[in-house]
Amino acid sequence: MYKRGLYVGRFQPFHIGHLEAIKYILKKVEEIIIVIGSAQYSHTLENPFTSGERIVMIREALNEAKIDLSKYYLIPVPDVNVHSVWVSYLISFVPSFDLVFTNEPLTSRLFKEAHFKVEPIPFFHRELYSATEVRRRILSGENWEALLPKSVVKFLKEIDGIGRILELAKTDKTIIQ
Amino acid sequence: MYKRGLYVGRFQPFHIGHLEAIKYILKKVEEIIIVIGSAQYSHTLENPFTSGERIVMIREALNEAKIDLSKYYLIPVPDVNVHSVWVSYLISFVPSFDLVFTNEPLTSRLFKEAHFKVEPIPFFHRELYSATEVRRRILSGENWEALLPKSVVKFLKEIDGIGRILELAKTDKTIIQ
Amino acid sequence: MYKRGLYVGRFQPFHIGHLEAIKYILKKVEEIIIVIGSAQYSHTLENPFTSGERIVMIREALNEAKIDLSKYYLIPVPDVNVHSVWVSYLISFVPSFDLVFTNEPLTSRLFKEAHFKVEPIPFFHRELYSATEVRRRILSGENWEALLPKSVVKFLKEIDGIGRILELAKTDKTIIQ
Amino acid sequence: MYKRGLYVGRFQPFHIGHLEAIKYILKKVEEIIIVIGSAQYSHTLENPFTSGERIVMIREALNEAKIDLSKYYLIPVPDVNVHSVWVSYLISFVPSFDLVFTNEPLTSRLFKEAHFKVEPIPFFHRELYSATEVRRRILSGENWEALLPKSVVKFLKEIDGIGRILELAKTDKTIIQ
Amino acid sequence: MYKRGLYVGRFQPFHIGHLEAIKYILKKVEEIIIVIGSAQYSHTLENPFTSGERIVMIREALNEAKIDLSKYYLIPVPDVNVHSVWVSYLISFVPSFDLVFTNEPLTSRLFKEAHFKVEPIPFFHRELYSATEVRRRILSGENWEALLPKSVVKFLKEIDGIGRILELAKTDKTIIQ
Amino acid sequence: MYKRGLYVGRFQPFHIGHLEAIKYILKKVEEIIIVIGSAQYSHTLENPFTSGERIVMIREALNEAKIDLSKYYLIPVPDVNVHSVWVSYLISFVPSFDLVFTNEPLTSRLFKEAHFKVEPIPFFHRELYSATEVRRRILSGENWEALLPKSVVKFLKEIDGIGRILELAKTDKTIIQ
Repeated sequence: MYKRGLYVGRFQPFHIGHLEAIKYILKKVEEIIIVIGSAQYSHTLENPFTSGERIVMIREALNEAKIDLSKYYLIPVPDVNVHSVWVSYLISFVPSFDLVFTNEPLTSRLFKEAHFKVEPIPFFHRELYSATEVRRRILSGENWEALLPKSVVKFLKEIDGIGRILELAKTDKTIIQ
Repeated sequence: MYKRGLYVGRFQPFHIGHLEAIKYILKKVEEIIIVIGSAQYSHTLENPFTSGERIVMIREALNEAKIDLSKYYLIPVPDVNVHSVWVSYLISFVPSFDLVFTNEPLTSRLFKEAHFKVEPIPFFHRELYSATEVRRRILSGENWEALLPKSVVKFLKEIDGIGRILELAKTDKTIIQ
Repeated sequence: MYKRGLYVGRFQPFHIGHLEAIKYILKKVEEIIIVIGSAQYSHTLENPFTSGERIVMIREALNEAKIDLSKYYLIPVPDVNVHSVWVSYLISFVPSFDLVFTNEPLTSRLFKEAHFKVEPIPFFHRELYSATEVRRRILSGENWEALLPKSVVKFLKEIDGIGRILELAKTDKTIIQ
Repeated sequence: MYKRGLYVGRFQPFHIGHLEAIKYILKKVEEIIIVIGSAQYSHTLENPFTSGERIVMIREALNEAKIDLSKYYLIPVPDVNVHSVWVSYLISFVPSFDLVFTNEPLTSRLFKEAHFKVEPIPFFHRELYSATEVRRRILSGENWEALLPKSVVKFLKEIDGIGRILELAKTDKTIIQ
Repeated sequence: MYKRGLYVGRFQPFHIGHLEAIKYILKKVEEIIIVIGSAQYSHTLENPFTSGERIVMIREALNEAKIDLSKYYLIPVPDVNVHSVWVSYLISFVPSFDLVFTNEPLTSRLFKEAHFKVEPIPFFHRELYSATEVRRRILSGENWEALLPKSVVKFLKEIDGIGRILELAKTDKTIIQ
Repeated sequence: MYKRGLYVGRFQPFHIGHLEAIKYILKKVEEIIIVIGSAQYSHTLENPFTSGERIVMIREALNEAKIDLSKYYLIPVPDVNVHSVWVSYLISFVPSFDLVFTNEPLTSRLFKEAHFKVEPIPFFHRELYSATEVRRRILSGENWEALLPKSVVKFLKEIDGIGRILELAKTDKTIIQ
């Protein structure tokens, strides 16, 4: 059995598809390192939540799912915009790992070029469980709550996350007018 | 009455709508801080002018409008691409202020999350007086001069600003081919 | 009782003084957020270990000390070199908190200027338990092991951390000769 | 005759149009400085190859074309995203030069504002010989080899450059999912 | 007579020597551009004040000295750490100028290499009127007030600038312990 | 025999010790990649020359020493200040290589941690042939010319490199006063 698996996402927000992926990976490795990517970004429609908010979301969702804290590391990693150094930058932020789980072609290629073993993750109702679909439902007033763990729904309400997404959707570009 | 109001724009270029906004704000506050945003950018179609050029434009337009220099601060502030720190970065560049004027949803949200009081500005013939419309008219050869204060028209001619915009429009992307 | 306390350190390496500080803080708050500062740096004499290595060290030391994982968040935060934005950058990486523990004058001042409540931490044999003393003993061949939790000693040996520090000490400045 | 001419490109990849441009310029100047722009980028569909890979490609293609090494400098220059400093940044990376060859409007304008003499380059079957066309043919399975010097074709096969481009095309945006 | 002279300083804080320099320059040029350098830095012993604070200081001191607002531009410019682009970066932030006033050898050299005319400024009791001496007196409890314009003394007291400097002096290095 | 060896230096300026190292390495490998480190820096006492100037110096010195252009690559690489990514950043700028030559402990360690083979270079009268000694002699008016290849002496005189170093020595810190 592999000791540690790496799983990278943006989790904007964390949804049931992410949770299923984590459960799947935990059957294959002893510990999972969950990397919160693009950690420095927030307050855009694509990246509405800070990494601090995403840490709370994920920790509460995994707690709700009875996944023991000793089974995972939850680590924010800022983006660097130079692809050739991304893998080594990420490596410096996390414990050592021996297997990478990803379906993303670029992530996969970069880790393979760095001689890591990469495995895909079975998709879980991909058409439903995607952050894009969650944000789409929020913007169109449809039922977004069904796509998220209950504890994430609760947290988003506490921090008025829906209000933030609706407001960000009104901006057409950048900070300044 | 509030002591200082903050007003952020890119002013690419400074037009009559901006001037009207400043006049409006000066009825509500003793002093206005005019922030020239995206200060480090220039020579793109969206941001044709340097912040040095924008400083001259605005100072001459306010002079033409008989707005006293003692009523305003004119301060360039570079963009930082991390929204969560933008407000505190801006704060470090300007005198203290107690009211923010903006119609931009993201600017508004970021200042509200930082516990500032935010007020909208009445639009002044928004369909006419926008930097986008000015640049569109320049590119299509229509009458752009009517949208700008006379002193700005004069300055743009002196620095061949129109030539620069026309030439930038021929580039399809970035510096290098 | 306060809900969450913030504690920032570089932990190069994590020593018994850090552990005592965490125990002290956990008597005052329900949860502690341990921020690993200067997270992007490693391989210098001042910052020998990556934040990934520091995460392992601290997690193992707290496990050894029987501190429950549910009591703390362990979060790397990169340095930004602009002091005026450091507090808001850090805030975006961590869950919300209501109390800051620090003895460092600048950290203290920056949080106070941002209207946070700041409390000092009683020093625990400061002359012994400091990262500077640990590195000094390593370089002079004295007994450094007594200053660290056993699990940290074990981890440093596994990754040849001592060899790294000794080698870094031979460099007189930067990467290139 | 001018002593040194400057020629900037991204060379993603280096094709026969680039080679013809270099031959043309070498009739006008004693030495050519070939700048590999956007040097820090790689592993995107627009910028698939590292600058190290591009250096090898170009050197082998010029060797194949019997262009003597003493006639050119081949120098990678990273992008800076602030147009107003790009010319002076580039100047610091290269030997002094007295003529710039470019067809790109922004490059041309920036060098002219910095008081350099700028000349256009005759296009050589522009509809065929462009990096965009090369990448399009690779993605659609058409004959891309005809557009490149033989030695570049050989090198791309050695490093599986085609596989990289095909894989990058499956990503819809950035590194993380 | 020259139209615009450039004068660069950090003004940490603005003292009587700076004021005398500005008066001297204004005898030689129609308008002065006062650049507040290292604009993004604050909260260090070398750079205690934000550029917003420095703007207020200087504006009030020039007002006290009856220097008309129409005679000067007051513009913060962030540092870039690459000397070869500093002049062109600065140029993009300020109105055009035709003369540079400086006693600093590097500033002088960089402007001369960029083909600007550079003139020295007569020192005014340099041993007294220097920011280093001001900060030294503050730290040793001596009379610092004599070195500053009255309005700057008043402003520093309002913002507890002395308290900040004393507290920063207690830190031995960076933000985090 | 190894195909390509990597050799990293700052070459401020290029002296006879560097030349001897290159000759030594060329006995061991078919081609040498000479990396000009800290490529973006210039105009400081430690880094007086731009990488463009250093390229000219080295090319002329190797030409004087009858080292064929086909035997070496000469490539500037900017510093990144994060040690953990330096090796992968450098790799992206250069052709592939299979051996690293360095005497510098940190460079050596970083390449070894990245699984490269590293070999030392015999020192050639180290007390004489060092960039520090060259700059020291220039500043004290001693015979610096003996330490450099003739072509480098000639080039430094052409660009008034000695004047620049003497002027930089008068600055006590950074750009602005």
